[in-house]
Amino acid sequence: MLVERNRILTETIKRLMRRGSTARLEKIIRKVHAADLPSVFPSLSVSNQRKLFQLIHDAGKKAFAISELDEDISLNIIESLSLEELAEIMDNMPSDDSVAFIKMLPQNKADAVLGMMGKTESEEVEGLLRYEDDTAGSIMIPDFIALKENMTAKDVIESLQSKEYLDVEMPFYIYVVDDHDRLVGVSSLRQLVVVPSTTPLHSFMGKEVISVTTDMDQEEVARIVARYNILAVPVVDEDEKMVGIVTVDDVIDVFREEATEDILKMAGVGEEFVETKSIVRSTRIRLPWLFASCVGGLIASVIIGRFQLSLSKVTYLAVFIPVIMGMGGNIGIQSSTIVVRGLATGRLHIKDIWSSMFKEIAIGFILGTFYGLLVGIVAQLRYEREFLALAVGLSVACSMTLAALSGSLMPMLFARINIDPAVATGPFVTTAIDILSVSFYFLIATKMLCL
Amino acid sequence: MLVERNRILTETIKRLMRRGSTARLEKIIRKVHAADLPSVFPSLSVSNQRKLFQLIHDAGKKAFAISELDEDISLNIIESLSLEELAEIMDNMPSDDSVAFIKMLPQNKADAVLGMMGKTESEEVEGLLRYEDDTAGSIMIPDFIALKENMTAKDVIESLQSKEYLDVEMPFYIYVVDDHDRLVGVSSLRQLVVVPSTTPLHSFMGKEVISVTTDMDQEEVARIVARYNILAVPVVDEDEKMVGIVTVDDVIDVFREEATEDILKMAGVGEEFVETKSIVRSTRIRLPWLFASCVGGLIASVIIGRFQLSLSKVTYLAVFIPVIMGMGGNIGIQSSTIVVRGLATGRLHIKDIWSSMFKEIAIGFILGTFYGLLVGIVAQLRYEREFLALAVGLSVACSMTLAALSGSLMPMLFARINIDPAVATGPFVTTAIDILSVSFYFLIATKMLCL
Repeated sequence: MLVERNRILTETIKRLMRRGSTARLEKIIRKVHAADLPSVFPSLSVSNQRKLFQLIHDAGKKAFAISELDEDISLNIIESLSLEELAEIMDNMPSDDSVAFIKMLPQNKADAVLGMMGKTESEEVEGLLRYEDDTAGSIMIPDFIALKENMTAKDVIESLQSKEYLDVEMPFYIYVVDDHDRLVGVSSLRQLVVVPSTTPLHSFMGKEVISVTTDMDQEEVARIVARYNILAVPVVDEDEKMVGIVTVDDVIDVFREEATEDILKMAGVGEEFVETKSIVRSTRIRLPWLFASCVGGLIASVIIGRFQLSLSKVTYLAVFIPVIMGMGGNIGIQSSTIVVRGLATGRLHIKDIWSSMFKEIAIGFILGTFYGLLVGIVAQLRYEREFLALAVGLSVACSMTLAALSGSLMPMLFARINIDPAVATGPFVTTAIDILSVSFYFLIATKMLCL
Repeated sequence: MLVERNRILTETIKRLMRRGSTARLEKIIRKVHAADLPSVFPSLSVSNQRKLFQLIHDAGKKAFAISELDEDISLNIIESLSLEELAEIMDNMPSDDSVAFIKMLPQNKADAVLGMMGKTESEEVEGLLRYEDDTAGSIMIPDFIALKENMTAKDVIESLQSKEYLDVEMPFYIYVVDDHDRLVGVSSLRQLVVVPSTTPLHSFMGKEVISVTTDMDQEEVARIVARYNILAVPVVDEDEKMVGIVTVDDVIDVFREEATEDILKMAGVGEEFVETKSIVRSTRIRLPWLFASCVGGLIASVIIGRFQLSLSKVTYLAVFIPVIMGMGGNIGIQSSTIVVRGLATGRLHIKDIWSSMFKEIAIGFILGTFYGLLVGIVAQLRYEREFLALAVGLSVACSMTLAALSGSLMPMLFARINIDPAVATGPFVTTAIDILSVSFYFLIATKMLCL
C-alpha cells in the first residue's frame, strides 16, 4: 500500500536524520523514486526539511520534489537556496512547473533566476507567465511535436529521433500544422507505427482535432480531456496558432485539487489543505467563516429576545429550538451541497435555476411535512397543550422548505454574479437558515398559542 | 464552452424530436462525437430516451453512449433492447465497460447475452466478473501488449502491426514478460521508435516496473497512477502473472467519482448524483440522514426540558441556544471535513489519530476562547446579569472545543473499524454536537447562576 510505503520511508529517513547518518541517507535518496520523496517532508521539522533537500544530489529529483511539495514547505526550502541552485532546479523542470515555481519567488529573486537560466528555457517560462492563473495557458507545456502534413511516416519517425524533440515530455500525439502553424490534424504514435512507412501524414491523420484556447479555465480543459478520453489536448492562441499542450497528468491534478478545494471551501476551512499547516495558520483560516455563523447566531438570539414575554409564559417553547434549527440546517446543507457540486461537475447549469429550485422546494416540502408530523406528534405526547404540536410541526415544515429553497437558490445566485458558490454558500446558507428558522418558529408559535 | 455546446445540442435534438424529423436526427447523431451524445439523454422523457437511442446506428457509438449514461437512464434503455441488440452493444465495448454493463442486467438476461457474444470477448468478460467491485481487477482491461525480452525494436513494431494487437485500446507501453508471463520490464512507444531497430527489448526496457495487484482498491490504484505520472499501470495476479492494465482515463473517472461521492455522502444525499433523479427518489435518499438529526434534536429538547424550572426563572437563557449550537455545529463540520478529506486523499492516516486530535482540540480551544469572549461580551452588554456573560462565554468555548474534538475523532474511529467515514460522519457528528452543546450550556448556566 502507498500509505504504508510512505510511512516506512518517512520513519527510516527520520531515524537516519536523528543519527546523522548522511551517507546512508544519500544512498536511500538515490535509490528511491523521485515521486516518493515529497511525502516525507511534511513530517520533518523546518530545519530537517532543508537538510534533507540538500542531500538530494540529482537535479531532476530536486526539481520534481520541490514542485510536488505543499507551498509552505517549498517556500521554506526556497529561502535556504542560492540563486544558482534555484536556476539549476528550474532548468530541470517542465516549463509548466517552472511557472508555478517562479510565482513563489519574490520579484527580485525571480528576475535574477530567470537571467541565470538557459536562454530557451527562460524564454519559455516568460512566455507562459503571461497567462492568467488557472487557465489552459498557465498549465500547458510549450514543448510538443508539430510537423507538416506532407511528411511520410518514415520522416516523422526520423524527426522523433532528432535532438529537437528529445525533451518533449509526453509525446503521445504528433500534431500536424499548416504553414501558419495552425493546427490541421493529429496522429497518435500508434497510428504512426502501424501504417506503411511511405504514407504521408495527411492521409492517416485525424482531421477533427479537439483543441482548447489559452484563456480557457483549467476545469473546463480538464472536463474536455476527460470527456474525449484523450491523453493531451492542444492549446491554440487567438490566431489559431498552436502554442502548447495540456497533458492528462495535469488534468488529474486539476480534478484532485478542485474537488478537495470545493469540499474544504464549503466547510470554510480555506482553499488549500490545512492539515499540514500550523495550528496558528489553521486557526486564522477558519476564523472568518465562523464569524459569519456567530453573527447569525447572535441575530437569532436578538429575535428570540423579542419573544421573551411569550417565553416566560410558555417556557417549553425553548425546548424545540434545537430540533427546528437542526432540521433546517441539515436539509439546507444537503440542498446546497447538491447544487454546488452539480455546478462544479457541470451537471447543473445556472440556467437550470428555476427547475432546480422547484425540485428542491418540492423535496423540502415533502421531507418537511414528514418530519413536521413526527416532531409534532412527539410534542403532543410530551406537552398535550392545544395547538403546540401544530405550531411546532408547522415550524419544522416551514423551516425545512425554506432551507431547501435558500440552500439551492444561494449557490445559483452566487454563481450568476461570478462569486465562487463553494466559498460563499457555507456561511450564508447556514446563517440565513438559523435566522429564518427561529423567526418563523416564534412567529407561528405566538400567533397560534395566542401569546 | 462544453456546457454551452451540450445545451445547443440538447435543444436541437429536442426540437427535432418534437417535429419527428427522423432523417435530420440521424444525420446529427452521425456527425456528433460519441462523447457528446450522453449529455443529451437526461433532458429527455423516458420514451424519447429510448427513441433517441434507437436512432444511433453505429454500434460503437451505441456502446459508448450507454456506458457513459447514468445508471437509471441506462437501465431504462436496456429494458427496451432485444438480446441481440444487447450482445451487439457489448461486443463493441472495452471489456471493463462490458463488465459494468452486464452487472446491470438481470441474471437470466446476462447469461443469455454472454452466450450470444463473441467467444473471446465473453470469456474476457466472465474472467473480469470474478473480481470484486472497486478493485483493480474490476476496472482493468485485459488487452495489453506483452512481449518477450529478446525481441528487437523492429520485431516489436512488426508485432504492433499484427492483427492480435490491433484492438488494444490504449497502447502506450510495451510490457515485457518472462516465460511464465511474469512482468519483468516495460518500454514506452516513444523509446521504441527512437532506438536503432536492431536493439533488443531487454537493453532499453525499464526494469523497475510499478504494478498493482488485482485486489487493490481502485482509489489506491488511482493514487499510484497519479503519483508516478504514468498512463497505465499493469495489474498482476497472486502468481505475479500480468493479467491486465488500468488506464489513465479510468483513473480520472475514479477520482471524479470518489470526490463527488465523498462530498455527497458527507451531506447525506447518497452516493450517486441525485440531481438528475426524480423528486421521489431524491427524497427517499435524503430521508434517513435527516432522521439522525431529528432524533438528535429531540434528545436536545428533552435535555432542555429538564431545565425548564431554570428557564422559567431566567427566560433569556433560551436566547443563546442558537449561537451556542451554531458555533459548535460549524466548527465540528470544519474539523470533520478536514479529517474525512485528509483520509480520502491519503494525506492523513488513521495512525495520526492522536496528533490530529490534539491539533483540532488546540484549534477548537483557541477559536472557542475567541468567540466565547465575543459572545460573552455581547451577553454582558445586553443583559448585565452577573455571571451570565461568563456562563454563555464558557459554554461557547466548551461547545467549540468539544465539537472540534468529536469532529476529528469520529471519522478516525469510523475509518478504524472500516466504516466509510464520509457516510457516518455527517449525522453522527452533528447530532452529537447538538446534544453536547445544549447539555453543557444548561449545566454551566444553572450552576453559575445558582438556578
